[in-house]
Amino acid sequence: MDSAAQKHAASLTAIFDHISAVGARAGEGVTRLAASAEDGAARAIFADWMARGGARLAHDAVGNQFACFDWAGENAAWIFAGSHLDTQPRGGRFDGTLGVLAAGCAALDLHTEVQADRFRPRHNLAVVNWTNEEGARYQPSLTGSGVFSGALPLREALSLTDGAGITLSDALAAIGIDGETGGVPPRPKAYVELHVEQGRILTVAGRRIGVVEGTWAARKMMVRWIGRAAHTGPTPMADRRDALLAAAQGVAAFEALIAARHPHLHRSAARLVIEPNSPNVVVERATVWFELRGLDVAELDRAGQPVLAAFEKAAAETGTRLEIIADTLREPAGMDIGLMAITGEAARACGFEPLPLRSVAGHDAVALQNSGVPSALIFVPSVDGIAHHPEELTHPEDVEAGLAVLTTVLRRLAEGDFDAER
Amino acid sequence: MDSAAQKHAASLTAIFDHISAVGARAGEGVTRLAASAEDGAARAIFADWMARGGARLAHDAVGNQFACFDWAGENAAWIFAGSHLDTQPRGGRFDGTLGVLAAGCAALDLHTEVQADRFRPRHNLAVVNWTNEEGARYQPSLTGSGVFSGALPLREALSLTDGAGITLSDALAAIGIDGETGGVPPRPKAYVELHVEQGRILTVAGRRIGVVEGTWAARKMMVRWIGRAAHTGPTPMADRRDALLAAAQGVAAFEALIAARHPHLHRSAARLVIEPNSPNVVVERATVWFELRGLDVAELDRAGQPVLAAFEKAAAETGTRLEIIADTLREPAGMDIGLMAITGEAARACGFEPLPLRSVAGHDAVALQNSGVPSALIFVPSVDGIAHHPEELTHPEDVEAGLAVLTTVLRRLAEGDFDAER
Repeated sequence: MDSAAQKHAASLTAIFDHISAVGARAGEGVTRLAASAEDGAARAIFADWMARGGARLAHDAVGNQFACFDWAGENAAWIFAGSHLDTQPRGGRFDGTLGVLAAGCAALDLHTEVQADRFRPRHNLAVVNWTNEEGARYQPSLTGSGVFSGALPLREALSLTDGAGITLSDALAAIGIDGETGGVPPRPKAYVELHVEQGRILTVAGRRIGVVEGTWAARKMMVRWIGRAAHTGPTPMADRRDALLAAAQGVAAFEALIAARHPHLHRSAARLVIEPNSPNVVVERATVWFELRGLDVAELDRAGQPVLAAFEKAAAETGTRLEIIADTLREPAGMDIGLMAITGEAARACGFEPLPLRSVAGHDAVALQNSGVPSALIFVPSVDGIAHHPEELTHPEDVEAGLAVLTTVLRRLAEGDFDAER
Repeated sequence: MDSAAQKHAASLTAIFDHISAVGARAGEGVTRLAASAEDGAARAIFADWMARGGARLAHDAVGNQFACFDWAGENAAWIFAGSHLDTQPRGGRFDGTLGVLAAGCAALDLHTEVQADRFRPRHNLAVVNWTNEEGARYQPSLTGSGVFSGALPLREALSLTDGAGITLSDALAAIGIDGETGGVPPRPKAYVELHVEQGRILTVAGRRIGVVEGTWAARKMMVRWIGRAAHTGPTPMADRRDALLAAAQGVAAFEALIAARHPHLHRSAARLVIEPNSPNVVVERATVWFELRGLDVAELDRAGQPVLAAFEKAAAETGTRLEIIADTLREPAGMDIGLMAITGEAARACGFEPLPLRSVAGHDAVALQNSGVPSALIFVPSVDGIAHHPEELTHPEDVEAGLAVLTTVLRRLAEGDFDAER
């Protein structure tokens, strides 16, 4: 690594450590839920860092932050690079944050060259922090990139409510985001995102750089059983309509059915809300968030049939009523072929043999790509594949590799050396 | 009913409506969790009402409220009557509140006679509001009566924490209760509690007054499965240790096992806390509150064996670790025989044929009785047996019947006409 690259890696480490302290607690990782006070603090650090580096800051009505480098003038096209600063509860430091800050470092690096007149881009560049990628506080996930790309209406996004009944609109207002600032860049010509793999494929293959070809499909179901509150003591068993019992049977049956018939599908029930939640009151309403992920949409459809029948059976056996609140499919995405080629070349130029692979998880780059913005997703290794956990880790040399490749890709794209091929 | 009784019933209705508005929301019943702001407001209304009627107010360190009528001087014995003003989340109006306010009405009635020198009691009387009977916000339930009776150490009670991590001590301080006021009466000679049945036995038998002989036993288990947080997408299924899946299997197996082998036992899992609770993170910790109720302690013990084995099996199958945080038995209580006789006679004197019955639920009177304070528990009917639900209802004529019997019992006890026989 040359000394400039070392300088940028050191700069990335400094800002990464600074932002990672926001929402961190010893042994519990980082909790920086979207539009929380912690998210607001991280956004302010990011904005200040970018502004001091020469960027013009803007945000749109859903809170997506843009650090803009207007290198090529008003009429020039835009390149975006970024990810998200929100985290899961007790999440890791790298997920999302690495992508935003590495893009920021790359942009500052290129901006220094622009100012020294060593680099004359034909396009403008914006570093983007997308709102509520995680979907931990507000569902659906990918909220900010979904609104920007047109998949999710703004009004619908702003009226999402968290578990405490607070709308995204109110939460954003509480951290000072109340409508668009103006000066938000238009749809870009290309979007590039660096992210941690959250799996073991790179490590097993002995590679540092992954070039994502596409993603798995995901079917997400939000299912509610509605019973009736009653005293857990005297109420005769025959009179009970226990929504938690129904949900428990539903969760157990979901796993048993998919494990038996479609063991290669990834599946989970990871969020459950019950009302009331008192040891002495039979649960009246139980809502469960199920996920089913795989490559083949038709298989997700087939796999869901017996699951829905099992949910109905649980309702019938417990005297509860089943409501399927949502049952949505995220189609598998294919990332942009031209950008994959450019990313692969950049990796090789930096000395890393790239590995093409698929992402099981959704990312902002997938939302952009699916809306017609040619997008690239670059992976660096996650130790032991640990993700959404305080022990999430990417080694410094892998971070440096990712930063070098990202900087190389952004330089080429800002030079205008790219035409989308889909 | 004579005009004095009608006047007292009208007075009870007025104060009952006043207090029932605290924490009430249309269609959602009453939410007045222990030591909440709403509980504080209800306590203040109760204290003001009693003080205006001539009572001396005191409270102990766990927040039990005593409205004292020092009729017979410092050296006289005490009779207590009361129940609790806290409710379940979205609970009913009658559970607990009826018992406190009916005791208050009865005490004011008797106090009027004392002042007119028509009634010369040999004992003092206190109307008591016990803290956190419900166990909705803090577990275990019967907290205040448990501390008073010596079953629960004060320090342990004050350090209980709610779901938000707030200690009972801090919650009490927030509503102005910070240590004992002084002047709290000593252990009473007898305790009497009027309560709604929360079942259908009285209605089915066509009776207005139930005299509780004793209670069922209850086994309460707090069980935790500990797995590991991970991304619900890319994490290979074989790597997952899903605590919610384990809990779901545990809840489903608990019901299936008991329903098959001990169908007459009442059982429930009604509280569940999962961490984190995000759709995209495999659940790391799932804690479930189980209850098993029946008459026979030996049967509760036998019934628990295969259940614990099923919990272990769920842990083994999901790669999680099982912790039995608590597994406590509440012995079946037998209420005081002498007080049962006095209560039965009082019912007949008021024109109601009493029905002896058993209570499935625990009540403050059970905590007192189990600690050696002779106690009586009087039931009035609950429409359709609905309890811990906004539609909980006891008809006005049943409330009046309960008040008349309670007043008659307290008059006899205050006269000194009682020696405990156990």
